[in-house]
Amino acid sequence: MADLFWPGDDRAGDHFTSESFLAVMVELEAEWADLDLSDVDAERHLEWLVNESEIGGNPVIGLVDLLREATGDRSIHRGLTSQDVVDTALVRMAEQAVADLRHDLDAVVARLAALATEHRDTPMVARTLTQHAVPTTFGFRVAQWLTAVLDARDDVRRLEFPDQLGGAAGTRAAMVELGRDLPLDELPWHTTRATVTRIGDALAGCADACARIANDVLVLGRPEIGELAEGSGGGSSTMPNKANPVLSVLVRRAALTTPQLAATLHLAAASQVDDRADGGWHAEWATLRDLVRRTLVAVSQTSDLLDGLVVHADRMAATLAAAGDGVLAEQRTMARAAGHDPAPTYLGQAGAIIDAVVARSKENP
Amino acid sequence: MADLFWPGDDRAGDHFTSESFLAVMVELEAEWADLDLSDVDAERHLEWLVNESEIGGNPVIGLVDLLREATGDRSIHRGLTSQDVVDTALVRMAEQAVADLRHDLDAVVARLAALATEHRDTPMVARTLTQHAVPTTFGFRVAQWLTAVLDARDDVRRLEFPDQLGGAAGTRAAMVELGRDLPLDELPWHTTRATVTRIGDALAGCADACARIANDVLVLGRPEIGELAEGSGGGSSTMPNKANPVLSVLVRRAALTTPQLAATLHLAAASQVDDRADGGWHAEWATLRDLVRRTLVAVSQTSDLLDGLVVHADRMAATLAAAGDGVLAEQRTMARAAGHDPAPTYLGQAGAIIDAVVARSKENP
Amino acid sequence: MADLFWPGDDRAGDHFTSESFLAVMVELEAEWADLDLSDVDAERHLEWLVNESEIGGNPVIGLVDLLREATGDRSIHRGLTSQDVVDTALVRMAEQAVADLRHDLDAVVARLAALATEHRDTPMVARTLTQHAVPTTFGFRVAQWLTAVLDARDDVRRLEFPDQLGGAAGTRAAMVELGRDLPLDELPWHTTRATVTRIGDALAGCADACARIANDVLVLGRPEIGELAEGSGGGSSTMPNKANPVLSVLVRRAALTTPQLAATLHLAAASQVDDRADGGWHAEWATLRDLVRRTLVAVSQTSDLLDGLVVHADRMAATLAAAGDGVLAEQRTMARAAGHDPAPTYLGQAGAIIDAVVARSKENP
Amino acid sequence: MADLFWPGDDRAGDHFTSESFLAVMVELEAEWADLDLSDVDAERHLEWLVNESEIGGNPVIGLVDLLREATGDRSIHRGLTSQDVVDTALVRMAEQAVADLRHDLDAVVARLAALATEHRDTPMVARTLTQHAVPTTFGFRVAQWLTAVLDARDDVRRLEFPDQLGGAAGTRAAMVELGRDLPLDELPWHTTRATVTRIGDALAGCADACARIANDVLVLGRPEIGELAEGSGGGSSTMPNKANPVLSVLVRRAALTTPQLAATLHLAAASQVDDRADGGWHAEWATLRDLVRRTLVAVSQTSDLLDGLVVHADRMAATLAAAGDGVLAEQRTMARAAGHDPAPTYLGQAGAIIDAVVARSKENP
Repeated sequence: MADLFWPGDDRAGDHFTSESFLAVMVELEAEWADLDLSDVDAERHLEWLVNESEIGGNPVIGLVDLLREATGDRSIHRGLTSQDVVDTALVRMAEQAVADLRHDLDAVVARLAALATEHRDTPMVARTLTQHAVPTTFGFRVAQWLTAVLDARDDVRRLEFPDQLGGAAGTRAAMVELGRDLPLDELPWHTTRATVTRIGDALAGCADACARIANDVLVLGRPEIGELAEGSGGGSSTMPNKANPVLSVLVRRAALTTPQLAATLHLAAASQVDDRADGGWHAEWATLRDLVRRTLVAVSQTSDLLDGLVVHADRMAATLAAAGDGVLAEQRTMARAAGHDPAPTYLGQAGAIIDAVVARSKENP
Repeated sequence: MADLFWPGDDRAGDHFTSESFLAVMVELEAEWADLDLSDVDAERHLEWLVNESEIGGNPVIGLVDLLREATGDRSIHRGLTSQDVVDTALVRMAEQAVADLRHDLDAVVARLAALATEHRDTPMVARTLTQHAVPTTFGFRVAQWLTAVLDARDDVRRLEFPDQLGGAAGTRAAMVELGRDLPLDELPWHTTRATVTRIGDALAGCADACARIANDVLVLGRPEIGELAEGSGGGSSTMPNKANPVLSVLVRRAALTTPQLAATLHLAAASQVDDRADGGWHAEWATLRDLVRRTLVAVSQTSDLLDGLVVHADRMAATLAAAGDGVLAEQRTMARAAGHDPAPTYLGQAGAIIDAVVARSKENP
Repeated sequence: MADLFWPGDDRAGDHFTSESFLAVMVELEAEWADLDLSDVDAERHLEWLVNESEIGGNPVIGLVDLLREATGDRSIHRGLTSQDVVDTALVRMAEQAVADLRHDLDAVVARLAALATEHRDTPMVARTLTQHAVPTTFGFRVAQWLTAVLDARDDVRRLEFPDQLGGAAGTRAAMVELGRDLPLDELPWHTTRATVTRIGDALAGCADACARIANDVLVLGRPEIGELAEGSGGGSSTMPNKANPVLSVLVRRAALTTPQLAATLHLAAASQVDDRADGGWHAEWATLRDLVRRTLVAVSQTSDLLDGLVVHADRMAATLAAAGDGVLAEQRTMARAAGHDPAPTYLGQAGAIIDAVVARSKENP
Repeated sequence: MADLFWPGDDRAGDHFTSESFLAVMVELEAEWADLDLSDVDAERHLEWLVNESEIGGNPVIGLVDLLREATGDRSIHRGLTSQDVVDTALVRMAEQAVADLRHDLDAVVARLAALATEHRDTPMVARTLTQHAVPTTFGFRVAQWLTAVLDARDDVRRLEFPDQLGGAAGTRAAMVELGRDLPLDELPWHTTRATVTRIGDALAGCADACARIANDVLVLGRPEIGELAEGSGGGSSTMPNKANPVLSVLVRRAALTTPQLAATLHLAAASQVDDRADGGWHAEWATLRDLVRRTLVAVSQTSDLLDGLVVHADRMAATLAAAGDGVLAEQRTMARAAGHDPAPTYLGQAGAIIDAVVARSKENP
C-alpha cells in the first residue's frame, strides 16, 4: 500500500490491506478447521487469488482450493460459506482498526482537554457566518472541538463486531449436519447489514469531528488572522518562503469523501435481497476499507496537528481589541434591558461549559 | 404539502411542514419569553416570513419582528440567537416525528414477529446471488426482515433530542447578562452536529430495513415466482389486467434517496467552522425534513405492505420441489463427510434462530 | 411553495411545483387527445390526485380518471402509458426551468465579464492553501469565476429535452394499433435515463460554479481581510451591528446538497431493469425537482450577489503591500535562474488570460 | 495493485496505479525541462515519495528533489508549481484510460448491435414494475441496452483532457519571467474543475449503462425465469451444483458505488476557493482513480458478459405463451376503440426502433 493518491495513507499501516484480508481469512479457516495453517504461505499466491476472486465473485473459493491443496485436508472450510469468511474477516479487521482508532481518539481527546484548560481564559473574538460576533475564549472554541470528538468517540465505542456465521443461506444447515451447532447469542446477519452501516456512520462521524477542527485551523491560520498555526507547515515546490497547513488540508480532504462512502454502505444495505445480495454485498468491501483507512489517517493527522498547534494568544487579543465596540453591542442591549450596567466581561457560561466538557472527557478515560 | 412528486408523502402528515416549523418556533419563543403567544396568527404571514428568511438567512429574524410587532413586547427572543430557535425547533420536530416513527416501527415489528412465527415451518428455497441454494423456510426469511427492523429500531430508540441554546456564539453571554443561567447538563451544540447526523443515520437505517423487505416482495412477487403478493396492487393507466406491487416500489424508491441525504448531513457537519458555519448549518434544514418525511412514509407503507401481504405457501413448496435434488447437494456432501446419511430435513438452526429473533422483538416492547 | 426550510426557494417561482406538474400533464393529455382541456380545473382536485398517486404509484392514473370523468371522453390518454406522461412532463418542466436558468447564467456571465475587465489591473495577493502566494489581480480571480460559470453554461446549453413516448413497454404498440405511428427520430428512453442524469450533472455543475464564487466572497469578506463585501448583508436576531454575507452563505449551502441529488439520479439510472423500473424511476421525480429549484435559486442569488458586490481595491493593495517581499521570492529565484533582474511586475499572462476568458464569454452571447 | 477487495480490479491494468502516476509525472517534468529522465528510477523511491507526499501535501515536492538530486540539474520543474504536475498527470492518465474505455465500449456496442439484430423478432413478454405487461422482443430489450451504452459513449467521446499549466497562482508569472509564454488556447483551470467533474459524470454514466444490462441478466437469469444465462457462471465454496451470474453481480456492485464518487468530485469542485483549494483539490485524486478503474472493470466485465450470454428464446416464448391472454388485454381495448380486430401481432414499432438504434450505433464507428 504505497498510495501516491492519498498522502498520509501509510499511517493506516496494514489495516485492511489485501495481505491482511488474506491473513485474517486464513486465520478464520484455521480456527474453523482447528488446524495450524501458519505454514501455508497464502500471500505468495496473492496474484492468483485475486484472479480467482473474480471467477468466484469473492476471494474465498480460490483460497479454499489453495488451503486444501496445500494441506491435503479436504475438511477445511467444511460447513462454512464464502460469505461467512468474508464478513467475519471484514468485521475482525474493522475491530482491530477501531482499536487503533480509539487509541488515537483518546490521544486527541487528552490533547484537546489540556488545550481547553490551558486556554480557558484566553480571549478571542467569536465569529459567526464569517463575521465578528461577541467575545469568546479560545478555550471555549477548543471545547467545541472536544465535544465533536467526544460525540464521535461515543459512537465508535458503541460499535460491535459480531462474527457472521450462517452457512450457505444463513440457516447453519451444513453446520448442524456436521454436528456443529453454533450459539444463538450471535446470529447470522448475512442480509441485514446494520453491523456494517453503523461502522460506516461512526467513522464518518470521526472524520466530521476532525474536519471541524481542521476548518478552524485553516481559517484562523490565514495570514490576515494569524491566531493559530500548524507547527510544521509543508513547503512549496516553487515558492521558497511558503509554509502550508498541510495536515489541516489533508484532514479536510478526507471529510469531503467519507460521507459518500458511508452512503454507499447504506445503499448496499438497502440493496439486500434474497439470502445473499447480487451486488450490494460486494460493494461493501472496498468501501469499508477506504472508510477505515481514511478515518485512521485523518484522526492520526489531527493528533499530530494538535500536538504541533501554535496558539497566538496575542493575535487573538489584538483582533478582539481591534474589533472594538461592535462586539459588545449585544451586551449593551441586554444590560439596558436588564436595567444594569454591562458586566466587565461578556463570556457568559464559557468557563463553566469548558469545565463541563473537560469533565465529560475524563469520565471514561 | 400536497406533493405530487412523492406519492405517499401525505402519510407524513404535518411533520416538518413549514407551518409546523413556524408553530414550533413560536412555541419556543413563547416558552422563552414566558408569554402566551397563541393569539398571534404567524401562519397568516408565512409568505412574508419566507421572504424575510432569505434576507436574514434564516426564518427567525422576521419571526421575531413579527412577534414583537404583534405583542408590542420587545423582550421576546431576548437572550437567544436565531440558531437557538432553529436548532431547537428542528430537534423538537424530529422528536415528535420519531415518536410516530417508533409507533409505526413497533407495528411493523409486531407484524413481522407474527409472520415469522406463523411461517416458522413453511418450506421454501433459499436464493443466493439470484440462484437456488438450499432449503429454508419463509419464517426464516421473515426473521431476517425482522432483524433488520429491530436493528433499525434500536438505533432510533437511542436517539436524543437535546435543546440547543447557546446565544450568539454559544457562550450564553446574553443569557447570563440577563440573569438567566442555563443548566450545564445540556450544553450548546451549535457547531458540533452529532445530534443531527445521528438522526440522519438512524433514519437511513430504517429505510434500508424497509427496502430489504420490499426487495424480497418485488422478487418473490414476480409472476414466474409468485410466492408473495401485495394484497392490493396498483392498477395501470393502460393495461386493464395489471396489478402492480406499488407499496414495495415506493419503499424501494425511498431507500435509493435517503443515504445521500444522510451523507449531506455529514457533509454539513464536516463543514462546521467558526461559531456558526457559513452554509453547512443551512444545508441541514430541508435535508432533515426530507429524510424524516420519507422515512415516515416508507415505514408506514411497509406496515401496510405487511398487513396486506399474501403468502403463497403452495408456490413456495412447489418451487422447492421443482428445484429438485440440486438444493440438497450440499447436504449430501456434508453427510458424507460426517459419515452418516443425510438428515430428513436440512434446515439447520432455522427454527431456533427464528425463535431467538422473535424473542428479541419482544424484549422491550 | 412557501418553504421555510430553504430560504430563497421562492426565487424558483412555479417551476416544478405540484401545480405546474399537474398543469403540464393536463396539457400533454390535451395535446395527445387533441382536445381543449383548459376548462378542467384539475388543480382543484390536487389533494385527491395526491392521494390517488400513491394508489397507482404515480399521478397519472388518477388524473386520467379525472379528465375522462370531467369531459366524458374515454379517448383521453388512449395509447399512452403513465410513464409517457410523467417523463415528458418532467422534461418539459425541466426545459422551461433551464430556459430561465440560462437567462440568469447569461446575466452572471455578463456581470463577471464586466467585473473582470474593470479589475483587470487591480492588484491583490494570490492565496494558495490559505496562505499568501504571489501577486495577482482581482480581475484574474474573477476570470476564474467566469471560467467556472462558462463551463457550467456550456453543459447546460448542451442539454436536450426529448419527449418520452413509448406506451406500455416502449414499443408503441398501442399507438400503432390506433394508427398513430410516431416519428423515429425521437425514440422512447423509458429505461435509459441519460436525459435525466445529464440534466442533473449539468445543474450540479452550475451549483459548483456558484459556490466557487461564494467561497471567495466569504473568505475575502472576513473582517480581517475585507477585500470584498456583499452589498446588503443580512442582519442578526440579537447582534445589532452585524452584517452577514447571506447570499454567499445560501449559495454555498445549495452546493453542499446538489452533488448528492445528482448522484441519486445516477443511482436511479443504474437501477433500471425490465421495461419499467421498480423504484428507480420513482426516485427521480422529487430529486429532479429539488435539483432544478435549488440551482435556479443559487444562480439567481449569485446574480444578486455580484450585482451588489463591493470591491475594496484599497484593501487588496494594502494586503499585497503588507505581504511584503515574501510574495516575490519566487520571482527572484526565477529571475536569478534566467540571469536577469526581476521584471517590475510579476503577473505573467494574467491580463492576456483575462482577455481570453472575457472573449470566450462573448462568443455565443 | 493486487486488490482482493474489488474482484476484477486487475482488468484495469496499470491505469492510475501509483507507479503510473509517478511515471507520468516524471515524463511531464522531462518534457518541461526538455531532458531525458528515463534513467532516473523514481519507482525505486516510491515508498520515500509516498512519505514525502504527506509532508508536502502532494507528491511533487519530493519528486522534484529526487529528480534534481539524481540529475544534478536544478532547472528541473522551474516555472511549474506542483498543481501543474499533478493536474496534468491526472488528466493524461485519464486520457489513456478513456482510450481503453472507448475501445471496450465499442466492443460492447458492436456486440449489442449484433445481438439486437439477431433477436429482432424473438418474442418475449415485457415486464413493468416486475409484472407482465405486453409482448415485446428480446431484440427490443437489447436495443434499450444499446441506447444506454450509446448515450454513455457519447458523453465519453465528448470528454476533453487539457493540460493544466498555470504556475503558483495560475498567472504563469514564473513562466513569463523565464521567457516561456504559454499559448492562450489552453488556459489554466486550477480552481475551476469542470474538466474533472465531466470525466466523473461520464464515467458514472458508463457504470449506469452497464448496470442496466446486468440488472436484466440477473432478473432474467433467475431459475424461475431462465430466459438468459451467463455463459460461465461462478461456483460456490460449499454448494457443488451452483452456477452464479458473477459478472452481472460485479457490474451491479460497481454501479452502486460510482455515483457517490462522482458526487465527491462535484463537492470538491464546489469547495474551490482562493487560487488553490484547501482540501477540495486533494480529494479528487484517489476518487478519480477509483472511478476510472471501476468503470474500466465494469465495462470490460460487461463485454465478457455479453460475449458469453446465453439466450433461451424457447423460455421467452414459453413465458409469453403462459402469460396468456392478459398481456393482450391492452391490445383488445385499443382495437375496440379503433373499431377493428386486433392485429395478429402487438409489437408496434419495436422492429423499426431496433433498426434505428442499430443504425445509430454504426454512425460513428
